[in-house]
Amino acid sequence: MADDSENRVWTLAQRPTGTPDDDCFELETRTIPTPAAGEALVRARYLSVDPYMRGRMRAGESYAEPWEVGAPLQGGVVGEVAEPNGTAFETGDLVVGNLAWADYAAAPAHELTPVDVGDLPVSTALGALGMPGRTAYFGTREVAKPQPGDTMVVSAAAGAVGSVVGQLAKMAGARVVGTAGSEEKVEWLHDLGFDAAINYRAQDDYDAALADVAPEGVDVYFDNVGGPITDAVFDHLNTDARVAVCGQIALYNAEERPTGPRKLGKLVETRARVEGFLVSDFSARFEAATADLRRWVTDGDLSYRETVTEGLERAPEAFLGLFEGENVGKQVVKVS
Amino acid sequence: MADDSENRVWTLAQRPTGTPDDDCFELETRTIPTPAAGEALVRARYLSVDPYMRGRMRAGESYAEPWEVGAPLQGGVVGEVAEPNGTAFETGDLVVGNLAWADYAAAPAHELTPVDVGDLPVSTALGALGMPGRTAYFGTREVAKPQPGDTMVVSAAAGAVGSVVGQLAKMAGARVVGTAGSEEKVEWLHDLGFDAAINYRAQDDYDAALADVAPEGVDVYFDNVGGPITDAVFDHLNTDARVAVCGQIALYNAEERPTGPRKLGKLVETRARVEGFLVSDFSARFEAATADLRRWVTDGDLSYRETVTEGLERAPEAFLGLFEGENVGKQVVKVS
Repeated sequence: MADDSENRVWTLAQRPTGTPDDDCFELETRTIPTPAAGEALVRARYLSVDPYMRGRMRAGESYAEPWEVGAPLQGGVVGEVAEPNGTAFETGDLVVGNLAWADYAAAPAHELTPVDVGDLPVSTALGALGMPGRTAYFGTREVAKPQPGDTMVVSAAAGAVGSVVGQLAKMAGARVVGTAGSEEKVEWLHDLGFDAAINYRAQDDYDAALADVAPEGVDVYFDNVGGPITDAVFDHLNTDARVAVCGQIALYNAEERPTGPRKLGKLVETRARVEGFLVSDFSARFEAATADLRRWVTDGDLSYRETVTEGLERAPEAFLGLFEGENVGKQVVKVS
Repeated sequence: MADDSENRVWTLAQRPTGTPDDDCFELETRTIPTPAAGEALVRARYLSVDPYMRGRMRAGESYAEPWEVGAPLQGGVVGEVAEPNGTAFETGDLVVGNLAWADYAAAPAHELTPVDVGDLPVSTALGALGMPGRTAYFGTREVAKPQPGDTMVVSAAAGAVGSVVGQLAKMAGARVVGTAGSEEKVEWLHDLGFDAAINYRAQDDYDAALADVAPEGVDVYFDNVGGPITDAVFDHLNTDARVAVCGQIALYNAEERPTGPRKLGKLVETRARVEGFLVSDFSARFEAATADLRRWVTDGDLSYRETVTEGLERAPEAFLGLFEGENVGKQVVKVS
């Protein structure tokens, strides 16, 4: 923990080539920032690490702003207001925002959102009730749109997004199949009500595994991973199938442009639709989504898990673990 | 030409490996079929050869029934009723149907459609007013949906489908860019009102060529080819772009499963939608489509070209030429 005057801040030491490692991160000790006019000072409690952040490690334009070498890393943080500094917040208010990976960060008040998790743990503001939960919510309901009787496949189904997607698809009446990378995850998927689950690390033939769990083909696919699992699912798409592309974690560390089988012909045969989406496009409806997610979790209709890494100093380890599939459910870092 | 009692019939001699050649086709002399009850006998005038037929040369399930080795090849034929045989047709009625590549074929009356090309050449029933025209019509209006101000790219733009797509997109107010494989085709695209055209055979850098003709990116892509041209277009997709996948001719002769760059991540970044379609899904609306197409051609709002190969005996040559890009506009075979 930082002492009263110190502020530990993770910065980007260098951009990675291929799979990032510890050399990309540097923990600096800086002074606690003084909030400017209109800014509040926030003390971090939990920090979110998410696969999409791999894109922010690259230079150049993408949908998320690149992290800059030498500058603090940023991401979802839930914390408490340490100095309202004349903003509408009060000391101790719980807020969530896109803040530095640090003990303390100052941010404009309009970029901080009061935490609205009700009686649930504040960390859920980064998970089931936060960006991953909303990504699942809009991706399932607005893009993938599972219907009663559909067979839906969810990749990385034991992750923060996939675990919510699968449960929402069950609520919608679909038969849901998940893919995940360990027996422990597969067991959790069964606990969540998934109709079937594949431990892809125990398979050498994804095609046969899919034929086994989805004998009538795939009507809906929610893709978090890309690569060979996605290739296999495409071969099982039914007529008029829908594919929601949320993430491609299997490809994020590739240095060469990844290649794979060309699948567009399959779309003609099946008249399938493949659509990418970003949760930020639905920002006008975030409050309603959070309210639904909170109610479902509170009522026991929606389960979640968190993998908590203790200590800001271990944030890179938590982030790098995402690419090894070490997390079950939402990976967060407990800062204080 | 056949004499009065002979019927020349093209059969599938063997399935191709890779690019098909003459050895796949055999011209047999059979007797003119006797129509069964409910069937009419049709004398072929024009025969359609289309890229999708490459799929019919393979064994196994697809959206089009496979041709069988030793059996007559089939496809779109326009001809005249030679023997009504008690059906509602009269001798000499012009009809279109899915018939054998032959001088004469018998078919159930309900599978024959009166030709409705008005004063236009009957061959247009296989092209601008037939399956390719309708494919363009529904693919453009129901799948690609170009809007005023959109930049739309059409691949194989000088083909039977692409040439109509581009003109319909211009009607819809889009800025239209075509790709084609010769200077002659590029010139025709300019004549048709395309805003720009790329002769891909004269390019070694598709990416730079696209940046040149679509400096503001691509809002809509109508894909007839797949492969490297499509890869390049994907890299230029704008936010919320739509891709209508109609055909993948660049891949049809591949014996190994073709590979290419993985592009799903681009869909997340752009929130683009990629959708395959088959014209047959719109069959309930074919009459209305044909009526629109006929009116536009008659009024001079829609231009078409045909590449006519003379003689049933040259049908395989006409078909194989499709994969070399030898046709401009619709490739037909004049039988009689």
